[in-house]
Amino acid sequence: MRAVDIIQKKRDGHALSKEEIENFISSYTKGTIPDYQAAALLMAIYFQGMYESEVSELTKAMVHSGETVDLSMIQGVKVDKHSTGGVGDKLTLTVLPIVASLGIPVPKMSGRGLGHTGGTIDKLEAIPGYQTELATEQFIDLVNKNYMAVIGQSGNLTPADKKLYALRDVTATVHSIPLIASSVMSKKIAAGADRIVLDVKCGAGAFMENREEAMTLAKTMVNIGHALGRKTVALITNMDEPLGYYIGNGLEIKEAVDVLTGKGPEDLYELTKTLATYMVMLGKEMSQKEAETLVTDALLSGQARNKLKENVKSQGGDVRYIENTELFLQAKEQTTITAPTDGYIRHIDPKMIGQGAMMVGAGREKLGDTIDHEAGVQLHKKRGDWVEKGDKIATIYHQKQLKKDVLTLVSQAFHWSNHPVSKKPYIYQVITAPTE
Amino acid sequence: MRAVDIIQKKRDGHALSKEEIENFISSYTKGTIPDYQAAALLMAIYFQGMYESEVSELTKAMVHSGETVDLSMIQGVKVDKHSTGGVGDKLTLTVLPIVASLGIPVPKMSGRGLGHTGGTIDKLEAIPGYQTELATEQFIDLVNKNYMAVIGQSGNLTPADKKLYALRDVTATVHSIPLIASSVMSKKIAAGADRIVLDVKCGAGAFMENREEAMTLAKTMVNIGHALGRKTVALITNMDEPLGYYIGNGLEIKEAVDVLTGKGPEDLYELTKTLATYMVMLGKEMSQKEAETLVTDALLSGQARNKLKENVKSQGGDVRYIENTELFLQAKEQTTITAPTDGYIRHIDPKMIGQGAMMVGAGREKLGDTIDHEAGVQLHKKRGDWVEKGDKIATIYHQKQLKKDVLTLVSQAFHWSNHPVSKKPYIYQVITAPTE
Repeated sequence: MRAVDIIQKKRDGHALSKEEIENFISSYTKGTIPDYQAAALLMAIYFQGMYESEVSELTKAMVHSGETVDLSMIQGVKVDKHSTGGVGDKLTLTVLPIVASLGIPVPKMSGRGLGHTGGTIDKLEAIPGYQTELATEQFIDLVNKNYMAVIGQSGNLTPADKKLYALRDVTATVHSIPLIASSVMSKKIAAGADRIVLDVKCGAGAFMENREEAMTLAKTMVNIGHALGRKTVALITNMDEPLGYYIGNGLEIKEAVDVLTGKGPEDLYELTKTLATYMVMLGKEMSQKEAETLVTDALLSGQARNKLKENVKSQGGDVRYIENTELFLQAKEQTTITAPTDGYIRHIDPKMIGQGAMMVGAGREKLGDTIDHEAGVQLHKKRGDWVEKGDKIATIYHQKQLKKDVLTLVSQAFHWSNHPVSKKPYIYQVITAPTE
Repeated sequence: MRAVDIIQKKRDGHALSKEEIENFISSYTKGTIPDYQAAALLMAIYFQGMYESEVSELTKAMVHSGETVDLSMIQGVKVDKHSTGGVGDKLTLTVLPIVASLGIPVPKMSGRGLGHTGGTIDKLEAIPGYQTELATEQFIDLVNKNYMAVIGQSGNLTPADKKLYALRDVTATVHSIPLIASSVMSKKIAAGADRIVLDVKCGAGAFMENREEAMTLAKTMVNIGHALGRKTVALITNMDEPLGYYIGNGLEIKEAVDVLTGKGPEDLYELTKTLATYMVMLGKEMSQKEAETLVTDALLSGQARNKLKENVKSQGGDVRYIENTELFLQAKEQTTITAPTDGYIRHIDPKMIGQGAMMVGAGREKLGDTIDHEAGVQLHKKRGDWVEKGDKIATIYHQKQLKKDVLTLVSQAFHWSNHPVSKKPYIYQVITAPTE
């Protein structure tokens, strides 16, 4: 089996066999197939796509390329969630405490952020003392005790995906549905998930900018999940403007806690409830209605908020920050941006807001950059709101003197209209079962 | 200018600019762009193709990636010829002496063979003593004196093409018209050609199996030639069966000399005359009719054959082999294959014949293999011939015991029909001027 023949077969639009995929991935991981042949195969996949069966085999091969996390010592059906990434996306922080408070184990492995989107680990580290580097036994113990714990991704999971992802990044082959789907699902499955709820973001601030592509990605991932014996549900959700009002690590924890206290913004609240509901449906094998009732109770009773406090305490974090979220608003400088005109907000470009937050230190421009946990952007208005000239529309939280670029970027993220602008739905569609 | 942006631009079907192409090629040649990015770009080009202007810029960039041969010390308009490669293609050996005998300088750089096709250098080395490793000054002197000399390709010409070609070979990106066209033309131009005649082989034994592809390749190369100030003509010729009756190094020299003595086979004779005519038209800027008269005279008068003798002598070869071509038929063993049935020959598969010749030592399976100059295959019949059961159809020339595989391969190359089979034209089309 020569690598060049496998490349040629895919180049010509044929389906690769299980053996061909396994062989290519394991040889590439070992280094006996060089980067340049993998790059050629990736570009051929970019153009020719993959059949469902190939994507499942690719995912399986990536899962088996390295270690897998053995979570069999955790009692119960472990449910995981994954978001394809957006601006202001703090849903892991709102959803996990709800689900865990209902007795469903959520052993969460999370990543760090890069570019205009943040990572859950970075956000949690905004809570002084919060530790995400736990030994596996400690992690398992915590989940068995509290149903919830969060750690950073292990370095030895899915090495094939790590190598391929780095290669895709420099060969213009990131944007390929079979490659994205197998990358996401291999990580979730290697991390030990039994059931998976996916949040596929769609819109200007997301990886998938149009509905059709987001739908194809969602279906592909749901199919992989079922093919590999992990029941999977995917929600296609709106990412045309930032989620909630806060963007930045500490700022997002603040807003997440607000949601768990019943004070959060509508978009974040609705998405939180829906995602949590699907996780509970999968975890407890109950109807949507039953699950929704449990989720609403967990929110209103404060039991979800208490679960977050318990988790923060168990991982060494300072719980005073959860009790008083104003503690997250301590950046030295706050610069306010006001409306240049009367009007309705037609659009808030999420990438520009994310970029602005990154530039004041809330995100990483490149791997290894340090994060300023207090920095970020607060929006005061959202799409469809009526604003009068001079009204506050955004506040930038920063420590050092603000660069003019950032001010311009955040200001220009707002687009205006003289006519009323309708709100968009927060959730476009839910894919609950495999498709042909 | 980041390599990944250039890859993405081509991936999305846009034309790359002159600067982008130059930058990519020079950085790749220097090694600052790695193989994996070049592989991704090659595959993107495979799928998206290139605009004419891009192909010309790519060719130029490859010419300038290394040394170019300065043949300005050679008087007159230097005309080169190139064949895209076929089985039994000994046209360089028949055409060059004709053109040189008419006072047109033909400084020829040739290559060695690989796989089922042979190289001119290997063929000439079948003449005992023939030297193809000449210093550039000696090469120029010989051309100035005799109008003809042949040397092996210099190692320092078009290093970008060498690197890219090796990469294409292992990434399933060989079969791409812009990549083939720029590779061929960059080598010809770097080697100092003023005018170029291309023989684009088309059919079962050629790289281009169908007419349409061969036509596109021919037009692309003619356009590059004109864009780079080298008048170029391309002939699209038949390669559905081996050219002539002899396949193998010494055997092909024998047949080439036969053509120059007026005894060669019809297909080889007609192609020789046509190719030589176009070279003379370009070299002397005369009409086709005038050129054809000169070429026919050169053949009938023996002056072309004398030119070959002169060349062989000047490069140290044993001219007795030119005087008596039976000297090339000295392989220890000759194994005859006879017709298994009465019938017309419907088809002789050129790749199978080429493969058979390679297996007895006439060609290289891999780089570095040594060549047996006496080995090869002689056909006794060609397409359309009527044959009776038991008639000789092929003779294999070999030194060691013949493997059964070879016998099977050469026998199975012959396909039979009960009905008369028409001959195909030897030349399908001639492209003399650039197209839109």
